[in-house]
Amino acid sequence: MTDDPPATVADHLLDRLADLGVSHVFGVPGDYNLAFLDRVLAHPRMTWVGTANELGAAYAADGYARIAGFGALLTTYGVGELSAINAVAGSYAEYVPLLHVAVGPARAAERSGAVLHHTFGDADFERFARAHAEVVCAHATLRPGTAADTIDRVLGTAARDSRPAYLRLPSDVGSAPVTAPAAPAAPARPSRSSAAGDGTGLAAFTRAARARLERAGTVTVLADFLVDRFGARAELTRLLAAGPLPHATPVSGKDLLDEGNPLHLGVYSGAFSDPVVRALVDDADLLIRAGVVLADTTSGGLTHGFDTAAGIGLGPHSASVDGLVFPDVPLRAGLAVLAELVADRETPPTPHRTFPTAGAPAEDGPLTQDRLWNAVAAAVRPGDVVAADQGTAYYGMATRRLPAGTRFLGQPLWGSIGYTLPALLGAQLADRSRRGVLLIGDGSAQMTVQELGTFGRHGLAPVIVLVNNRGYTVERVIHGARAAYNDIAAWDWPAVPAALGVRDPLVATVRTGRELDAALDRAARTSGRLAFIEAVTGLDDVPPLLGSIAHSLNDRNTAPA
Amino acid sequence: MTDDPPATVADHLLDRLADLGVSHVFGVPGDYNLAFLDRVLAHPRMTWVGTANELGAAYAADGYARIAGFGALLTTYGVGELSAINAVAGSYAEYVPLLHVAVGPARAAERSGAVLHHTFGDADFERFARAHAEVVCAHATLRPGTAADTIDRVLGTAARDSRPAYLRLPSDVGSAPVTAPAAPAAPARPSRSSAAGDGTGLAAFTRAARARLERAGTVTVLADFLVDRFGARAELTRLLAAGPLPHATPVSGKDLLDEGNPLHLGVYSGAFSDPVVRALVDDADLLIRAGVVLADTTSGGLTHGFDTAAGIGLGPHSASVDGLVFPDVPLRAGLAVLAELVADRETPPTPHRTFPTAGAPAEDGPLTQDRLWNAVAAAVRPGDVVAADQGTAYYGMATRRLPAGTRFLGQPLWGSIGYTLPALLGAQLADRSRRGVLLIGDGSAQMTVQELGTFGRHGLAPVIVLVNNRGYTVERVIHGARAAYNDIAAWDWPAVPAALGVRDPLVATVRTGRELDAALDRAARTSGRLAFIEAVTGLDDVPPLLGSIAHSLNDRNTAPA
Repeated sequence: MTDDPPATVADHLLDRLADLGVSHVFGVPGDYNLAFLDRVLAHPRMTWVGTANELGAAYAADGYARIAGFGALLTTYGVGELSAINAVAGSYAEYVPLLHVAVGPARAAERSGAVLHHTFGDADFERFARAHAEVVCAHATLRPGTAADTIDRVLGTAARDSRPAYLRLPSDVGSAPVTAPAAPAAPARPSRSSAAGDGTGLAAFTRAARARLERAGTVTVLADFLVDRFGARAELTRLLAAGPLPHATPVSGKDLLDEGNPLHLGVYSGAFSDPVVRALVDDADLLIRAGVVLADTTSGGLTHGFDTAAGIGLGPHSASVDGLVFPDVPLRAGLAVLAELVADRETPPTPHRTFPTAGAPAEDGPLTQDRLWNAVAAAVRPGDVVAADQGTAYYGMATRRLPAGTRFLGQPLWGSIGYTLPALLGAQLADRSRRGVLLIGDGSAQMTVQELGTFGRHGLAPVIVLVNNRGYTVERVIHGARAAYNDIAAWDWPAVPAALGVRDPLVATVRTGRELDAALDRAARTSGRLAFIEAVTGLDDVPPLLGSIAHSLNDRNTAPA
Repeated sequence: MTDDPPATVADHLLDRLADLGVSHVFGVPGDYNLAFLDRVLAHPRMTWVGTANELGAAYAADGYARIAGFGALLTTYGVGELSAINAVAGSYAEYVPLLHVAVGPARAAERSGAVLHHTFGDADFERFARAHAEVVCAHATLRPGTAADTIDRVLGTAARDSRPAYLRLPSDVGSAPVTAPAAPAAPARPSRSSAAGDGTGLAAFTRAARARLERAGTVTVLADFLVDRFGARAELTRLLAAGPLPHATPVSGKDLLDEGNPLHLGVYSGAFSDPVVRALVDDADLLIRAGVVLADTTSGGLTHGFDTAAGIGLGPHSASVDGLVFPDVPLRAGLAVLAELVADRETPPTPHRTFPTAGAPAEDGPLTQDRLWNAVAAAVRPGDVVAADQGTAYYGMATRRLPAGTRFLGQPLWGSIGYTLPALLGAQLADRSRRGVLLIGDGSAQMTVQELGTFGRHGLAPVIVLVNNRGYTVERVIHGARAAYNDIAAWDWPAVPAALGVRDPLVATVRTGRELDAALDRAARTSGRLAFIEAVTGLDDVPPLLGSIAHSLNDRNTAPA
């Protein structure tokens, strides 16, 4: 909370965002939001991050929120907000909490019935708010007298659900004096609020879980990304430290666990998993599912072999034991209970998995995806934030072991290609101490390439590996291997960063494993310069897991009705 | 109509689009739409145009539709369709008819209740269709038994209203056999269907208009872009040839009239018009308004001085005389009636306007906006399609005289910056005989720059003038003249076209009038190579009309509620 009461609705809104840990607002100016932007610049705890377009701003706000816990996006009415809506929908699908503020015409202009630019001229100013209502968990139009309460309600819902919310703000309402909110407390973040449930549900869950654990032989933990989104990373770590529990994650939970832990099994992908991992997950006497979302792209095309109604399941706000649901059990509290129960438990013999050590590659030759991701994984440092775009980059890296403390960003559920380039920008601004590593295909990078220059504007210098396979290789593997629609325009990739505003980039094109090693090594020894490595790979060369998933997606698209 | 009955719903849909004059489908592949894309490639009258992202595809489809009469956009579910929705909304605001087909999961996958990528995993597959319902004139989800009738209904509405429509297509429905439609005729284009009304309304309108004309002294015609959208260009030309009628257009009707006609008054912009134009429009005994939309950005901030309830008004489907509305009078029919009435009329003395001849500029010096647009206007050839992005380019060119037969593309009502770059791509594919000229600011170009490479892929070589004024100059004039939020990343513009896939572009940076003249002259003497001229102008230098409008917009944003 600030010391002085905020003067206007805009100031108050920014204070509330700051209370949620937000210090950067992403967006693009438009004539309706310029006065609001003055308040952003004037705010002591806020930094404005202008991007090249609104889609980039929204992806950046999402990447920021994944690291900082909450994000903020500011657009102008109509043209701006609708340009961002795909990214906001992605935040919804992937449980990323942020606020989208769309500033529009002043109320007097609304009432005039005039045909205003950025509108349909039909005096219906709620159209784009209604479109957003389909992709957010809470939305409202701010009015001066009720703005403070509305802001707290909407932000509170976004924080509790870990999903995006939307506020429509007539420009004059932002400049109006704010009335003190009824409840003075800032809306709490889920990670602070949900450490304990209401008591009743938790006690019943504890009894049922104890009984279930007592009669279990082998116990395996499968943890997924909702553990991150609902602030329960520490509780998960404590559970795994409480007793020898083999554990795995889907690709989407990649960065939750210390992959150096001998009980870490690696990635679980249903039928496409390593047989040892598959057996330990699917055939466990008791499978503890923590924050798991079973999506086609993260469960091996829904080929998981365990019974989703059996075992112990922990969701964001409830838990289940063999299908019996216990409400009011927050994820953090559920994990804490299980940690206590496991600590009290007799330790049965625990199966391990041994990983093959990737030896030095013997022969050099044309760069393969396998060689590429082995080399990139070896170059990742603890603490890096690695953003891997949906496609070969995501599945290639998700199946490599990464150092503890690495953050791994991707979008496996929403799967909007091009997401990671602006998302990494946001993630790096959320934590400048982390080195950024961007792994992205050429077709994906063409979607959002204009934000390369925004890295430069903010003094960020990530390592970028651009996979040049001349098109949409994922789609080629799914359908149309040599169809023209899977080709893209041929760009001169080494020239792109400097053309788009990156000063003095370190650029290389690599076609063999040794060239790649040399380029990665040079990038590691250089700091303060954006490193851009164009890695040329085969048109149909994909990581094995992606190949399996692609075939299963094609089967689903062509299934008889 | 094709000779063989189409085999599938997809084939039938493409036939219907072809019947509407569509020969190019714009979009981006995604795994749900690949089978549909096979049908596009196989269709004898269709060409697939893959773009770098969906926003570009949708803008291109819009630009295509403005020249060809109808457009087609193909995206994938969720991520793709939502990336395009701002452009679709723009087509709605600006009365551009096109069809957006979004192909999603197969019905079996929908019914499974599974969490599928590009969805929210909540078994609600109509979310994004509902979002689109806010920005289109007709929408539906296709089902095999009713697909043909649904397609005709939706396309018919889009054609009649000259606005976008949306079809959601589960992937398996596209491959299903099509059932013959109840009505075999293809939906008609508005330009073909609306030459005559139902008779009754037209007769009554004719009587009222005759009486009104008989008692009028001076008669002026104000014609706007709906004349183009509802296929009435020829009828407007006939009206103006029927008798000596002084005539003007708002900026949005720029290319409707032969600006060499001595009775052409130039651009009407309310209080910001030339005084002679203003007097002849505002003070006419009778003002004939043909397809006029009075928007803040096209009427001098709504400072028009005429009574909108007086005179003769012609809308898309109805007409009015001194406020009395006559339904069922299509724009074409109304113009035809007026042409007959004017031809029968005694000719009163007719006022003219003389335009100052832009003499050769005396001194060279740093390039000004005034000098820039004079030189660019002088370089435009009859038949060119000139796309001018909202901002200095649009208002700079709209206030210059252009050769007869020039098509002028812009987006003054929706005003989504970056629109024109992909829109010109579409417009050029609709008519390859026209040379393309793109006029765009640096902030706007950064929004959609990735489609530069798409010009190259399709052998298009426009002349591009990129105005480098280091940011959002329109916004600077509105508010925040030196605020950081109006700055953008500094790009190396001359390097951009080649980096993004344009082969062997003709590139120049100009800082003076003479350098500009030389670059434009070189571009005129070169064919087959994309010409890219970076024109450096002052941070706050804007065409006078834009300056006036910008100030009025700021007043409106800060008006008391």
